Amino acid sequence: MQHEVFRFAKATLPAVVIPAAILFASASAPAFAQDAAPASDTSRIVFNTVLFLFSGMVVMFMAAGFCMLEVGLVRSKNAATICLKNISLFAVAGVMVWLTGYNLIYGVEPGGLLGSFGPWSANDQRILETGYAASSDWYFQMVFVATAASIVSGTLAERIKFLPFIIFVVLLTGLIYPIQASWEWGEGYLDATWGFSDFAGSTLVHATGGWAALAGALVLGPRIGRYHNGITTPMPGSNLPLATLGTFILWLGWFGFNGGSQLALGTIEDAVSVANVMVNTNMAACGGVISAMLMTSFIYKKTDLTIVLNGAIGGLVSITAEPLAPAIWQSLMIGAVGGVIVTSSVPLLDRLKIDDVVGAIPAHLFCGIWGTLIVPWTNGDASIVGQLVGIVMNAVFVFGMSFAFWTMLRYSIGVRASVEAETTGLDRIELGLEAYPEFANR
Amino acid sequence: MQHEVFRFAKATLPAVVIPAAILFASASAPAFAQDAAPASDTSRIVFNTVLFLFSGMVVMFMAAGFCMLEVGLVRSKNAATICLKNISLFAVAGVMVWLTGYNLIYGVEPGGLLGSFGPWSANDQRILETGYAASSDWYFQMVFVATAASIVSGTLAERIKFLPFIIFVVLLTGLIYPIQASWEWGEGYLDATWGFSDFAGSTLVHATGGWAALAGALVLGPRIGRYHNGITTPMPGSNLPLATLGTFILWLGWFGFNGGSQLALGTIEDAVSVANVMVNTNMAACGGVISAMLMTSFIYKKTDLTIVLNGAIGGLVSITAEPLAPAIWQSLMIGAVGGVIVTSSVPLLDRLKIDDVVGAIPAHLFCGIWGTLIVPWTNGDASIVGQLVGIVMNAVFVFGMSFAFWTMLRYSIGVRASVEAETTGLDRIELGLEAYPEFANR
Amino acid sequence: MQHEVFRFAKATLPAVVIPAAILFASASAPAFAQDAAPASDTSRIVFNTVLFLFSGMVVMFMAAGFCMLEVGLVRSKNAATICLKNISLFAVAGVMVWLTGYNLIYGVEPGGLLGSFGPWSANDQRILETGYAASSDWYFQMVFVATAASIVSGTLAERIKFLPFIIFVVLLTGLIYPIQASWEWGEGYLDATWGFSDFAGSTLVHATGGWAALAGALVLGPRIGRYHNGITTPMPGSNLPLATLGTFILWLGWFGFNGGSQLALGTIEDAVSVANVMVNTNMAACGGVISAMLMTSFIYKKTDLTIVLNGAIGGLVSITAEPLAPAIWQSLMIGAVGGVIVTSSVPLLDRLKIDDVVGAIPAHLFCGIWGTLIVPWTNGDASIVGQLVGIVMNAVFVFGMSFAFWTMLRYSIGVRASVEAETTGLDRIELGLEAYPEFANR
Repeated sequence: MQHEVFRFAKATLPAVVIPAAILFASASAPAFAQDAAPASDTSRIVFNTVLFLFSGMVVMFMAAGFCMLEVGLVRSKNAATICLKNISLFAVAGVMVWLTGYNLIYGVEPGGLLGSFGPWSANDQRILETGYAASSDWYFQMVFVATAASIVSGTLAERIKFLPFIIFVVLLTGLIYPIQASWEWGEGYLDATWGFSDFAGSTLVHATGGWAALAGALVLGPRIGRYHNGITTPMPGSNLPLATLGTFILWLGWFGFNGGSQLALGTIEDAVSVANVMVNTNMAACGGVISAMLMTSFIYKKTDLTIVLNGAIGGLVSITAEPLAPAIWQSLMIGAVGGVIVTSSVPLLDRLKIDDVVGAIPAHLFCGIWGTLIVPWTNGDASIVGQLVGIVMNAVFVFGMSFAFWTMLRYSIGVRASVEAETTGLDRIELGLEAYPEFANR
Repeated sequence: MQHEVFRFAKATLPAVVIPAAILFASASAPAFAQDAAPASDTSRIVFNTVLFLFSGMVVMFMAAGFCMLEVGLVRSKNAATICLKNISLFAVAGVMVWLTGYNLIYGVEPGGLLGSFGPWSANDQRILETGYAASSDWYFQMVFVATAASIVSGTLAERIKFLPFIIFVVLLTGLIYPIQASWEWGEGYLDATWGFSDFAGSTLVHATGGWAALAGALVLGPRIGRYHNGITTPMPGSNLPLATLGTFILWLGWFGFNGGSQLALGTIEDAVSVANVMVNTNMAACGGVISAMLMTSFIYKKTDLTIVLNGAIGGLVSITAEPLAPAIWQSLMIGAVGGVIVTSSVPLLDRLKIDDVVGAIPAHLFCGIWGTLIVPWTNGDASIVGQLVGIVMNAVFVFGMSFAFWTMLRYSIGVRASVEAETTGLDRIELGLEAYPEFANR
Repeated sequence: MQHEVFRFAKATLPAVVIPAAILFASASAPAFAQDAAPASDTSRIVFNTVLFLFSGMVVMFMAAGFCMLEVGLVRSKNAATICLKNISLFAVAGVMVWLTGYNLIYGVEPGGLLGSFGPWSANDQRILETGYAASSDWYFQMVFVATAASIVSGTLAERIKFLPFIIFVVLLTGLIYPIQASWEWGEGYLDATWGFSDFAGSTLVHATGGWAALAGALVLGPRIGRYHNGITTPMPGSNLPLATLGTFILWLGWFGFNGGSQLALGTIEDAVSVANVMVNTNMAACGGVISAMLMTSFIYKKTDLTIVLNGAIGGLVSITAEPLAPAIWQSLMIGAVGGVIVTSSVPLLDRLKIDDVVGAIPAHLFCGIWGTLIVPWTNGDASIVGQLVGIVMNAVFVFGMSFAFWTMLRYSIGVRASVEAETTGLDRIELGLEAYPEFANR
């Protein structure tokens, strides 16, 4: 999501990096669209602003998608709590991106490590140069930050207290996410020194959320009764239709997430790129669904809906680092591997006794890494070394900071709900209500 | 939502009304964007039309948001009935805005009190002057009117009969709403004589819905068993995940509701304004969530999800009267006060034995009044006197008309469901089905 | 959805075909908008691309709408399976439209019968002529094809095995739909020879889905216990709030479905047409809701929510063949008849022992035919003969092919779930899980 320079680089990219002779012809750059009369300054700025605002709106809706996915995958006794966490984290993220986040991301020196602290305010004095309304860009970044926080809530569901979770969201959205994002999207040192490439955030958003979730899961420990004598007790989600709805909403939101990350819509090249990005994004999701569907059918002899849902998400995360350069068949493959990763790593986590309630670590962290690593396959400007450096730096910083913060929270206010609350359900103890008060439990 | 004149006034507003030295710098008007080449007539008209249509679509989706919020907050025995009411009211609103509503709103003389009666039809002969497709504007107005009707259904749930509710929707959307809206958005006497200011309808939409709901609640009385010997019996909502989903949908829809109320997108100034409006709208919702979250945590020692959800809505309603002029911190404050209002007035209504099933009166009426009153704080063109006159006129007219109509309905076809229907559930008696026929009740 | 030629024809249409003196004045063509400065090539192409992408996104969301509608109308023991089918079919449709679908639709010779086989790839070399990014058009077509497949899953719910269903989706989205669509939208023989007119697919999308569903229902037979001794046993949907949500999502998506089918947004004429299309689309849905509401109230003395929901869909399908030409009152009437068709044909199907779980055949097939037949009433360019030929050709081809494929599947891998699976529920047997594992059944 870098501005200006990165954008123009991308616009001329496909013609260079994709040989015409690959299996199926790839998206061709409309080279001689240069003959077309350009949009006026006003139209260009309105187009760019519209891209940020309308894409941002569907990305905002992903907050609802995560909420539905998670509420569907927890047990009903914790369903209201997960709703509360999801709407609260979105509110907190909005405030923190204003207070510190945005200026940490974009206030960094070129090649630098740390941006500036302080609240953001819209400044449109240079709009003819930036090409978009300042607020539209802020809005788009804000919903991205919220996405990372949404990822965390799912993994830690059913056993974390509300207050430490919200405090962690403050730290994640106001500090951790912005600092690591600045290294790349703020044109800091990952971008300047290492040529790290992450179009819409396989690493910067999704692995970030995943590392923060993993650190939390380790500090928090598994749910009571989850792992016992080497046996994993299934704790099935209470409302799979809502989990499915959430997945569809996320799929929809991803068109804005990746499409909007083109960051511009005022030229023919940009419009073509946004369209290509959306098609590749869809293809990767298709790949994730189909590979998860086939794998669960063959391995377990049952087509497991929850794994297929996570397959879609895994495919989407996988393409997010580079949704522009791939040919369609490549997008399908990249997403399909994402589906394989999700399907095969869910049991792995259980073997390690890492209790990830909704499967967010496989989908967002593992697929985020995979998607970032595979970028050089389709985008010749990226190198495997640069990608590895980016992945490792993100891992060290986000996991390290998160683990430290979670540990501090653990030994101060405590992170784990009481045994009584966990057994009875967080809803009744922490919220004093129930998600489905009339429906009898088996 | 006034056209032309009002819009240009707004575009040059921020530079005038917001001193540069307030706590955090506010959105600055892109003054020298005047140097930019303007959009062509065609592009300008397409941009404006797109704003109406795409914003209108997310506002239309708010009908689903209200439906989910309400269905989640009623008991399961009345869940199908509230669904039926919500989809029916949207259909009725569409017909009434065509038959009488639109021409009542916009057919009023400047400074006048009553528009013209008769069905609307699209006329694009003056499109170069108006700057948008006539149908796009109609569509945007129609979804606004439907919003007001959606507010009413929640308050009166679980005890009102279907037929009188639908008849009231006919009167509200075809008569009451349009007439009062014409006084301001039709450039009638509230706008011309009093300089009343209501950007997107804190008063004109939300308080209107709230007054109509309050009148209905008074005529209808509380649910059986709700208030007894000074004790309020809780009747908790049956499906809080759906209520949460509804709130997220409303939050999303509000970006179209307030953003689209800029009414134009064909200039840089307009694009900047739409973006600023959307950021402020989000900030107010954040404020509402956070203040409701803190208040319920401290007062009740439980973080009550349903109050937090209403806090979000209260924050959104509060900013709706002026989402353009405030600095970000002001938007946050305005919304936070909305959250406080919602949290503190829910028990107040119960003390008055006004049974508002979903809490719509605090969120839409009280916060609507608050949002309208606070406009002069951030918008120097508005006066507290003008705002008070607008609020009072709206109150007198909408509450008076609504009370009269509800009373007439009460003494003609009756408004209250039979005791049997209310006890058994409206779904089985009025609809002959159940919302969740397989789920056993406790 | 034909390109270029068809589009220009439409832009000048209303002025020709609609006499000024009909009951209420109809949408007037902005004839002298010709004086307006046109958009630049760049702006025109971006506008067109944006129309495809943003409309396509809400049409994509219809996949979630169908899923929610269907999951709400099946019994809870089959709810997870219908979710799995809906997300899988969307993934399969994406792949098939890429592999064969798109080139079958648009690779046909003018007046021809069969397009070319082979995968699609984006080619923007002629973008100045086509006027849109190739990928944006592909995306828009893809979500249309998925819609047809979504229709089928509802009718066949609760008794079809997963694998044959997915195989049929492959055939429907990769072969059946594309071939019949090419006859019209690919400018094949239905368009060239018969002047068949189907703006957004009453026949090409909805009747296609309906015929495929009907063929499947006949081959599959009714659910166990559905029809016995001349009595139809009601099998009520398990979650009507989700069915209502699904209907609202479909209603929203239809604005993209019909509005985007204008296929262009780069001129004032196009913007006006898109706006008019959206208003007419809404009016038809209103008509469907209101007529279903009135009919069920008068006939059954109960206002049946599920029929009202299908009334909305029936109204929307009915207007889809021609949402541009009608005056508003005509749209309302066309949709109202759709609501009557839905209400009256549900019992008819039961009498014929055709078990259509969600009522998709009345809503999509019968209303699709109705909507196609009524086109000449409002669009003077269409003839009743041409419409009949299109309907019959579509019926013969889609029903014939579908019946053949379903029969082949029946006698090879089998289509019908085992008696045990159907009785216990497909979720437990085929998926090994439950949609609502904690909620006790009555």
